[in-house]
Amino acid sequence: MFAPSSPPTGLLERVFRYIDLHQDEFVQTLKEWVAIESDSVQPVPHFRRELLRMVALAADQLWRLGASVDSVDTSSQQLPDGQTLPVPPIILAELGNDPKKPTVCFYGHLDVQPARREDGWLTDPYTLTEVDGKLYGRGTTDNKGPVLAWINAVSTFRALDEDLPVNIKFVIEGMEEAGSLALEELVQKEKAGFFSSVDYVVISDNLWLSRTKPALTYGTRGNSYFSVEVKCRDQDFHSGTFGGILNEPMADLVALLGSLVDSSGRILIPGIYDHVAPLTEEEKRTYEAIDLDLEEYQNSSRVKKFLFDTKEELLMHLWRYPSLSIHGVEGAFDKPGAKTVIPGRVIGKFSIRLVPHMNTSVVEKQVKQHLDHIFSKRNSSNQMTVSMTLGLQPWVADVGDKQYLAAKRAIKTVFGTEPDVIRDGSTIPIARTFQDTIQKSVLLLPLGAADDGEHAQNEKINRWNYIEGSKLFAAFFLEMAKLHSPWQEPSSLDLTY
Amino acid sequence: MFAPSSPPTGLLERVFRYIDLHQDEFVQTLKEWVAIESDSVQPVPHFRRELLRMVALAADQLWRLGASVDSVDTSSQQLPDGQTLPVPPIILAELGNDPKKPTVCFYGHLDVQPARREDGWLTDPYTLTEVDGKLYGRGTTDNKGPVLAWINAVSTFRALDEDLPVNIKFVIEGMEEAGSLALEELVQKEKAGFFSSVDYVVISDNLWLSRTKPALTYGTRGNSYFSVEVKCRDQDFHSGTFGGILNEPMADLVALLGSLVDSSGRILIPGIYDHVAPLTEEEKRTYEAIDLDLEEYQNSSRVKKFLFDTKEELLMHLWRYPSLSIHGVEGAFDKPGAKTVIPGRVIGKFSIRLVPHMNTSVVEKQVKQHLDHIFSKRNSSNQMTVSMTLGLQPWVADVGDKQYLAAKRAIKTVFGTEPDVIRDGSTIPIARTFQDTIQKSVLLLPLGAADDGEHAQNEKINRWNYIEGSKLFAAFFLEMAKLHSPWQEPSSLDLTY
Repeated sequence: MFAPSSPPTGLLERVFRYIDLHQDEFVQTLKEWVAIESDSVQPVPHFRRELLRMVALAADQLWRLGASVDSVDTSSQQLPDGQTLPVPPIILAELGNDPKKPTVCFYGHLDVQPARREDGWLTDPYTLTEVDGKLYGRGTTDNKGPVLAWINAVSTFRALDEDLPVNIKFVIEGMEEAGSLALEELVQKEKAGFFSSVDYVVISDNLWLSRTKPALTYGTRGNSYFSVEVKCRDQDFHSGTFGGILNEPMADLVALLGSLVDSSGRILIPGIYDHVAPLTEEEKRTYEAIDLDLEEYQNSSRVKKFLFDTKEELLMHLWRYPSLSIHGVEGAFDKPGAKTVIPGRVIGKFSIRLVPHMNTSVVEKQVKQHLDHIFSKRNSSNQMTVSMTLGLQPWVADVGDKQYLAAKRAIKTVFGTEPDVIRDGSTIPIARTFQDTIQKSVLLLPLGAADDGEHAQNEKINRWNYIEGSKLFAAFFLEMAKLHSPWQEPSSLDLTY
Repeated sequence: MFAPSSPPTGLLERVFRYIDLHQDEFVQTLKEWVAIESDSVQPVPHFRRELLRMVALAADQLWRLGASVDSVDTSSQQLPDGQTLPVPPIILAELGNDPKKPTVCFYGHLDVQPARREDGWLTDPYTLTEVDGKLYGRGTTDNKGPVLAWINAVSTFRALDEDLPVNIKFVIEGMEEAGSLALEELVQKEKAGFFSSVDYVVISDNLWLSRTKPALTYGTRGNSYFSVEVKCRDQDFHSGTFGGILNEPMADLVALLGSLVDSSGRILIPGIYDHVAPLTEEEKRTYEAIDLDLEEYQNSSRVKKFLFDTKEELLMHLWRYPSLSIHGVEGAFDKPGAKTVIPGRVIGKFSIRLVPHMNTSVVEKQVKQHLDHIFSKRNSSNQMTVSMTLGLQPWVADVGDKQYLAAKRAIKTVFGTEPDVIRDGSTIPIARTFQDTIQKSVLLLPLGAADDGEHAQNEKINRWNYIEGSKLFAAFFLEMAKLHSPWQEPSSLDLTY
């Protein structure tokens, strides 16, 4: 870990001391949030109720901070089977509207990925459990912890009776893990309303590249998520009674999924690499500059061997080249034991991470053409249906923006080091949405460490990251206020893309 | 449906009338049995408790019939994760030991395949529901209905105060769907004890070939069930954070499963067809003789198109050629929705139906060699583990045995028609076990119609099959008694294999 280069003074010192002294309260609040099973992925009433409860609790918390809070209802969710599920409202909140201050809008989400103890969690995923300074629980790092860190920073200024250095807006949603269905529409609708006074957007929904060194993120991959259904009939078959005379849907599906990517990770869909931005020498050098300890990365990932041996190749295949992952199969036998079933109808799930300048609608067409081709070659009597269930564009930002400089300075103050300036292989679609719609600079300012395991079993955030992260946001507010003065321009752009 | 050729007279007439008059009671008992969730496949305590309750209830029912009942405890079940689950006892019961009568041993099972409403059941799988003469519910046809039909036949003689024409033994188990783990050992152990006086073994655990025409079955396929695990690490990954730099276990698994069988149903494992019995002209003629309405078969199966167009080819690929089915994947994302996960460890399940003279240990070796070869070609850094979790040999009988003749005569009496003399594509391992161990003739006398859907959603038995089946067993007892007299030899063997 890094020590600050020089101790903070004055207001900042008092802010930091307050956060240190109240850290157990901050952890306790995170525990309460984690206890709410706000899973937005599984479309079942229990989780949806939990999600609504989570959003209501956060709205109440912002209201108690003194923010004006608007919970905007969005339309309900229509499932493929015709069922309708309620969708949580999106919170639009604001705190301060001093025209002399910059307005920073923080985006975060309160929903989480599915988690079940039996998937391999060592502790109950919905009971925040601290072991050796690690706070385990679903949503600790993705994204409840960072949302609370921002709130902790704001509430510290309030508790110290200090003026907030910036005007703050919040956009907090509950459907991020399910594709942020209603958010884009809302941002569009509020472009000239809620968002008209926003100068900067900050998102803290990704991770550092390192376990200890902070990072700034200026790009994310997109995601085209596909489901391919192969159907013989709705009922399953007994493999004794029908095995040998059927085009079995699983055999078709396995052939389809097997045609997507080779064992070197190369995607086999014709044309898929056509729109990938060519690699320039200048961009290449940015990967060489990243401080990545390959051995530590491999150890912390607990992976025996990656597909690539050099830091540069690894980073490029995570950030600037597309990837294809097969997620699973719905409708087949998925339990322990030995069931002699021929599933009658199965749905394969896979997704492609898109990079600049790939486009979801082009990818959709390429994938469908490819699967049609593979399926027709099999001459199967089954029915195949392919659909792109999510289509999220990639995003890349200008690292010369003022808020990138402010974030760097705040990181230097809190952590005593320059950040890694990185991209992220995951998708944060709202970054692209904000950039495209309200045309303001978007900054990704992650708090979580590389080994936090978001989306996986045993997700955690380190207590240190959570608490220092709260300080980082407070310091960022002060840097933003300084930099925003019209006579204060950033002296040099440290990195451009 | 068929009408009896001539009305039965005397005792048989009274037996049939009794069964007709008491059919609602018989259905009620089946309803009580179906209500018990005796799933032996999912190794969880709830189902195991239900299973123990089911076996205890049946033992009590046999005891109330006047049978001497022995519930033989078998060893517990050791799961791969080290957990231990209790296993239900095996019921050995007997009724009558008159040395002048033949002793017929009936084998049946009380456990069922998994069933959940959300898998596509139109009614609750554990609530017997009658619609248009069809009794829907898990286990109605496989195998609770046939077990009760046998008990109904016996209890009818008791209720009429008539001597049973044959000595009866029962072997009733609760782990058939999980591979009858303890049964083989028990048959071996009781070879010179309980089984020493057995002359004939009757099993009613398969289906007719037709929806209306009865059948006798003289052969079944075996089953080698495999699980192939591909592991990168125990935890899952986020597809954004790791997609592009990993040998993903699902990509490996899909390639392995995709190498097993081609789209024409041909198994691609080298050597797998080496020990399949050659097809003789004589055997070929037996398939031509089977009365199968292809169109009706296709309609009742609700399959658009089979892999073969002729009756003979279909039957041979169900009965005398091996088949390979992929059942599913454990450890991957299997729910509705879109989860962006790279599963860290996945287990594919598939099985091969074996035919004479294939052998499970040869097949095990061939499958492992093949998968090793495919996996090594991928040069993946993951770990692959293949295991054969079930190995059940195929079985074929001599249709010239006395009890085959008795069954044919009983079928003629009850249904007014000759049966189809068929094989079955499913596995009834106990047939082979009885034949190999106690060296007595084994007869498969199915009661259920072709469209009963055992192992599938909406399993049912027709009320007609259940009630006429109870009569068939009663008529069979009387025919066996007649044929068993030493001076009464079958006059001709209608069909030999």
